[in-house]
Amino acid sequence: MKAARDIDPNYQDRVRTSFARQEFMRTIGAALTRVSPGMIELEMPFASSLTQQHGFLHAGVVSAALDSACGFAALSMMPANAGVLTIEFKVNLLAPGKGMRFIFRGEVTKPGRTILVTDGRAYAVDADGEAAMIATMTATMMTIVGRDEVKD
Amino acid sequence: MKAARDIDPNYQDRVRTSFARQEFMRTIGAALTRVSPGMIELEMPFASSLTQQHGFLHAGVVSAALDSACGFAALSMMPANAGVLTIEFKVNLLAPGKGMRFIFRGEVTKPGRTILVTDGRAYAVDADGEAAMIATMTATMMTIVGRDEVKD
Amino acid sequence: MKAARDIDPNYQDRVRTSFARQEFMRTIGAALTRVSPGMIELEMPFASSLTQQHGFLHAGVVSAALDSACGFAALSMMPANAGVLTIEFKVNLLAPGKGMRFIFRGEVTKPGRTILVTDGRAYAVDADGEAAMIATMTATMMTIVGRDEVKD
Amino acid sequence: MKAARDIDPNYQDRVRTSFARQEFMRTIGAALTRVSPGMIELEMPFASSLTQQHGFLHAGVVSAALDSACGFAALSMMPANAGVLTIEFKVNLLAPGKGMRFIFRGEVTKPGRTILVTDGRAYAVDADGEAAMIATMTATMMTIVGRDEVKD
Repeated sequence: MKAARDIDPNYQDRVRTSFARQEFMRTIGAALTRVSPGMIELEMPFASSLTQQHGFLHAGVVSAALDSACGFAALSMMPANAGVLTIEFKVNLLAPGKGMRFIFRGEVTKPGRTILVTDGRAYAVDADGEAAMIATMTATMMTIVGRDEVKD
Repeated sequence: MKAARDIDPNYQDRVRTSFARQEFMRTIGAALTRVSPGMIELEMPFASSLTQQHGFLHAGVVSAALDSACGFAALSMMPANAGVLTIEFKVNLLAPGKGMRFIFRGEVTKPGRTILVTDGRAYAVDADGEAAMIATMTATMMTIVGRDEVKD
Repeated sequence: MKAARDIDPNYQDRVRTSFARQEFMRTIGAALTRVSPGMIELEMPFASSLTQQHGFLHAGVVSAALDSACGFAALSMMPANAGVLTIEFKVNLLAPGKGMRFIFRGEVTKPGRTILVTDGRAYAVDADGEAAMIATMTATMMTIVGRDEVKD
Repeated sequence: MKAARDIDPNYQDRVRTSFARQEFMRTIGAALTRVSPGMIELEMPFASSLTQQHGFLHAGVVSAALDSACGFAALSMMPANAGVLTIEFKVNLLAPGKGMRFIFRGEVTKPGRTILVTDGRAYAVDADGEAAMIATMTATMMTIVGRDEVKD
C-alpha cells in the first residue's frame, strides 16, 4: 500500500531533525525509538507532571505523542522540500493511562499527494513489561510546500 | 438546553478541586478562569516549552487544554458523587497556535445522564489583544459513579 | 468570520445544480430549503425506508444529509471553477432520530483556501412542530480545481 | 483481545434478525455476508440511486454501511438482552466510491462492558475483482439494557 511512493533517501535525518525541534516532546520526555518509511514509534516514561486528576496520564499527553508519531510518519513519506501540518485528529481512549512507560506508534494508512491519512495506537507498559493498548488515533495530515513558516 | 438538569450547588468547588489535581495543567501553565454550569474557560500564556517544530503551540497542548475544559464543563453538570472520563474527542486545527496567550472554552452541548457531548473552541490572543479561533473540539464524556479510582 | 472572502455571484445556481445531481438526496427525499454563502439547510420527511432496527432514522441517513449540507455550505464559498470533496467527518448522535420530518444545517466555520472546516446540526421535528437537536457533525472539506471528475 | 468475553451462543441469530429489521440496509441493497464474534461484513452492489454529484457512492452511504457493520460487530459481543446504540463515529474518505460492488467490514477493537470501540474499513471492488480501500471508520457503541425502545 505504501509501495508506489518514492521515499526521500534522507527521510531519517529529516524526521530526527524535525522531532528534535519539537520542544514539547522534550517537555513530556518522549524519545524517537523507531523511524521507518510511513511508520514511527515514540516512547516516554510515566511522570507525575503529566497526570490528570486521578493520577493517570492526561488524555492530552496521549494525544500529543500520538499526533507527533502520526505527523512524523506522514513526513517520512513526503518529498524533501515539504513540511507537515495536522489538519485534524480523533482519539479514542480505551483504558486509563496507567503504566511505567508508554509506547506510541503512528502509521500512514493512505499516502495521498496532498492529504495523508494516518492511524496511531498508544500502549501502556506495566512493571512486568506487559503492554496494553490504551488509545487509538486517526489523524489527517497535509503536505505543505513553499510556505516558509512550515518546513519539515 | 441545559435547563432541566439539577446542578449540584457545590459544583464550583468540585471543579476547582479536581482541576487543581491535574498536574499536567500546571505543567503547561493553564489556569481556570471561568466556571459556570456547563461552561468552563482556561487560559495559558505562550511558552517555548510547549511548541512543535515550527515554533507554534503543539496540537497536543491545544488538545489537552480543550479536553480539560470540556471535561470540567461536563463534571460541573454531574451529580456530587460522580467522576468524569473522556471517551473520545476530535480536534480540528484551524490556524497555527501563534500568540501571546491562549483561551480554551468547553461547553456541554447535550447533557445526557451517562453520556455528555461537549464542544470546545481554542483562541490565540495576539499582542494587541485580538483573539483568533485556532481549533475546535467535540468530546464525548462519561459519568462514572462508584468506581474508586475515578472520582471528580 | 466568513467576511474576507469573495463569494462567486453565481453560487446559488452552482449549489442547486450540484445538489440536483446527487441522486442519493432524491433517494432519501431530501430537499434544499436554504442556500446562503457558507450556510445550507436541507429538509426531509420521515420514511420507514430510512430506518434502523428500532424504527428510528438510521445514523447513516443523518450523516448523509449532514455531509451534503456541510459540503454545499463549503461549495457556496468556493471559486466558480472549483469542486468540493469530503476529506472526513465526525458525527455525534445525541438523541434517537424520531420525528415527522428532519432539518439539517451545514455551516462553514473556517473557510480556508484549500481546506474548509464545516459544522452541521440535525433536528427532528415532532407532530407539534417542536424541533430537537439529534446530531452534530464536524466535516473537513477540500477545494478541488482542475480535476475533471470533480466539478461542483 | 476479544478473548475474555463470554459470547452469547445465539449471537448469529440476534445479529441476523436485527439486521433484517434495518429497512435502510434494504434501501441501499446491503447484505450481511459474514457474522463472527466481534466481526461483521456487509456487501452492496453499486447503484446510481446511491450517488453524489460526481457519480460516485455518496459518503453517507459509505457511512451508513460502515456504521451498521460496526454496530452489529458490537452487538455480536453483547449479552442476549442488550441492544446497541451508536454514540458517535468518524469517517475518513480515502478514495472515490467508484466500483462494481462494495465491501464493508466492522470489527470490535475494545469490547468494554458499557462502551465498545469499533473500527471499520470500506473497499470498492472493480470489474476485475480488485479491491481498493476507500474509507475507514472509528465508531463508539454503547450497550443498552432494559430500555424498551432499544432492543437488539
